[in-house]
Amino acid sequence: MNTAQNATERDETGNLISSSKVEGTKVYNTAREHLGSIHHFMVGKRSGKVEYAVMSFGGFLGMGESYHPLPWDVLSYDTDQNGYVVDIDKDRLKGAPHYGVNEEPAYDRAYGRSVYDYYGISY
Amino acid sequence: MNTAQNATERDETGNLISSSKVEGTKVYNTAREHLGSIHHFMVGKRSGKVEYAVMSFGGFLGMGESYHPLPWDVLSYDTDQNGYVVDIDKDRLKGAPHYGVNEEPAYDRAYGRSVYDYYGISY
Repeated sequence: MNTAQNATERDETGNLISSSKVEGTKVYNTAREHLGSIHHFMVGKRSGKVEYAVMSFGGFLGMGESYHPLPWDVLSYDTDQNGYVVDIDKDRLKGAPHYGVNEEPAYDRAYGRSVYDYYGISY
Repeated sequence: MNTAQNATERDETGNLISSSKVEGTKVYNTAREHLGSIHHFMVGKRSGKVEYAVMSFGGFLGMGESYHPLPWDVLSYDTDQNGYVVDIDKDRLKGAPHYGVNEEPAYDRAYGRSVYDYYGISY
């Protein structure tokens, strides 16, 4: 644990959310279009930091879906729509880094950088 | 995102794990006794930090189980047993902070402190 961390920085008092609640939550873009839903997270083994919320996108009746990793920081929560919002055009999302259900990539630095670059945030 | 964070500190190259893999993973103590399994996480909404891995303990046929929040830092992974290890006596675990399936507490500072104190780490 990072003992140097100021205890007041620790998320508390309703600022923690259960992963069970996040999983399945819908994701919209700023045009209020429904993009997909959060399927699972990619968590740093040592840090315990959620690096990516992996969104399930597309598919039909559970088939053909793809996973789009979203850096945790590109997500904001919209109480109005009861879902997350990410500022990306639906068409642009199609070209974002993604993979099939059983094709999880290595998540190395190059991959991480490609994801962050695509969403316009610094790695 | 914490732009001051050194990119080399970021977990990478196999150091990320899918939450789908963690959920359901067995938890043992140092005496190799099976304690329970990870059910879900409590994640800081702003930080994206997993503050607790919530372990499902006890119960039978899906009934009567309780949730024991384990600070992320008390868990280590044992490749031998293919599970997590937490250094706590089975009897002592029974008295650790826990709650029933639909009784999630507020996770305020007092609660967090009580959990960290119980596991002997500084909050």
